[in-house]
Amino acid sequence: MSRKFIIAIDLGGTNLKIALLTGGYEFKDRQTLRTRRFAQKDSLIQAIIDAVNKIIEKNCLGKADILGVGLGLPGPIDVKQGVVYFFPNIRGWKQVNLKKILQSKLGMPAFLDNDANLMSLAESKLGAARGYKNAVCLTLGTGVGGGIIIDGGLYRGTNSAAGEIGHIPINEEGPSCNCGGRACLEAYIGNDKIIKAARKLFRRNISLEELSLMARARNKQALQLWSEVGRRLGVALTGVVNFLNPGVIVIGGGVAGAGRALFDQVKKTIFSRAMKVQTGQLKVVKAKLGSDAGLIGAAILVKTGS
Amino acid sequence: MSRKFIIAIDLGGTNLKIALLTGGYEFKDRQTLRTRRFAQKDSLIQAIIDAVNKIIEKNCLGKADILGVGLGLPGPIDVKQGVVYFFPNIRGWKQVNLKKILQSKLGMPAFLDNDANLMSLAESKLGAARGYKNAVCLTLGTGVGGGIIIDGGLYRGTNSAAGEIGHIPINEEGPSCNCGGRACLEAYIGNDKIIKAARKLFRRNISLEELSLMARARNKQALQLWSEVGRRLGVALTGVVNFLNPGVIVIGGGVAGAGRALFDQVKKTIFSRAMKVQTGQLKVVKAKLGSDAGLIGAAILVKTGS
Repeated sequence: MSRKFIIAIDLGGTNLKIALLTGGYEFKDRQTLRTRRFAQKDSLIQAIIDAVNKIIEKNCLGKADILGVGLGLPGPIDVKQGVVYFFPNIRGWKQVNLKKILQSKLGMPAFLDNDANLMSLAESKLGAARGYKNAVCLTLGTGVGGGIIIDGGLYRGTNSAAGEIGHIPINEEGPSCNCGGRACLEAYIGNDKIIKAARKLFRRNISLEELSLMARARNKQALQLWSEVGRRLGVALTGVVNFLNPGVIVIGGGVAGAGRALFDQVKKTIFSRAMKVQTGQLKVVKAKLGSDAGLIGAAILVKTGS
Repeated sequence: MSRKFIIAIDLGGTNLKIALLTGGYEFKDRQTLRTRRFAQKDSLIQAIIDAVNKIIEKNCLGKADILGVGLGLPGPIDVKQGVVYFFPNIRGWKQVNLKKILQSKLGMPAFLDNDANLMSLAESKLGAARGYKNAVCLTLGTGVGGGIIIDGGLYRGTNSAAGEIGHIPINEEGPSCNCGGRACLEAYIGNDKIIKAARKLFRRNISLEELSLMARARNKQALQLWSEVGRRLGVALTGVVNFLNPGVIVIGGGVAGAGRALFDQVKKTIFSRAMKVQTGQLKVVKAKLGSDAGLIGAAILVKTGS
């Protein structure tokens, strides 16, 4: 095992998480900042640089002890070039060569990928998809992200943009989606859509956490709502199963906390609608690594260089 | 180039095609039989064996001159074991180890795959997907078949069942499909569905060929019908593009003969609904190898052993 350390960063719309990990993916230190404190692109990049330098110093390390910095980012990335295409939920980023900027300012290798890909990489190497050659991982949050593992490695596609499960249409016609398309899965079951449906149903503001708790307490309306989310997710995944024939589907992210009400319906839909050959050995499981999956995936990216 | 020859077989619901090819994939001889003459499984297997022996003899070759026999089959195959799971349109086949039977009766290596995979392999190595790392090929016929090329090779999935584009649901609810699911693409645009829609529209029996000719002659109703087929195909492919981010989509099979009326609508739907990063470099093209693609793919399978 390498005696060098890895710095992992997980940039979300809400939090900027930074961690120091060993070459064996153990956490040695970590810190969380609020993303919104850095409204401008340049101030956010500076915050990342400061945080990296700070965590190195704080742990009495030098740059020579660091194998590299891995970043999980909330939007599509040109992984080869290290360019951020844009962030759907953070303004001011368009065609930014973040890899180049960080490498030059930090003096160490930097690796970028989108958060859903890194979650998938982590679940594949150390989590719920471990041991499966072909896997599809998804993360249910503000958006519905996904990643594809083929032959044990991350499959990124032609423009490093593969895995967008949230943008599989589940109807010929339907609501407009942030992506410019319509009737996409995310246009039905993104967090804000679920919250909106809950508000309508209960005639008050209600958080996802509360809605999950209500389902666990067997509240009928909450169960019904989660079951509807699960059914729609199941329709999109039926297409994924028939088309890609993965060995396992891993579901993570905040919404996955709804538990059985959601999972049972996802499974019921897939196993009743997808083809028998494809579902014969298929597993549909919860993610194992929780909210650390992005950081772990970023560290794996640095360690393996892919 | 190998001085050995390859025997390729393409078994369809209607025709059993057999060909002798050089190691450079040139056709030296070919024959077509009617599949329906062989109602029983055993008589069909015997017909294959007889046809193989006959084409070897007729060309004054011996078994030592043959590298192997490649078979494209109209249903899901366990490629590793060489087992036919079943054929949707030919009765009496269930869990048949055709590879083992043929190898023992013919005394030469046999390789099996489904027809859509072999068409994809052929288009990838020698046809419209040549030069693309990641491709999705589909063949529009009785069923809607498909194959996935990843990193230049055929991706078969966990149970060699990947590529079933025809069984991606395009609506949450919709017509029952032969596969046991519902609202699958094929349940809307399989050949028989198109013919049925045409019969309703024109109040007489009408073949796909005639319907294609009518579209080329700018018949409004025929154009409208093909445009509807193209739009639905485009909805399923929007999901494929967002999820798999291929560099090219190749469309072949009889229905592809409808020409621009179909293609224009497929492209219009994909490029208006799919994500901009994924469609930035995407090509949507017609297959190049026509009805020989299955035979060529079967020969490639023998030659490359994969």
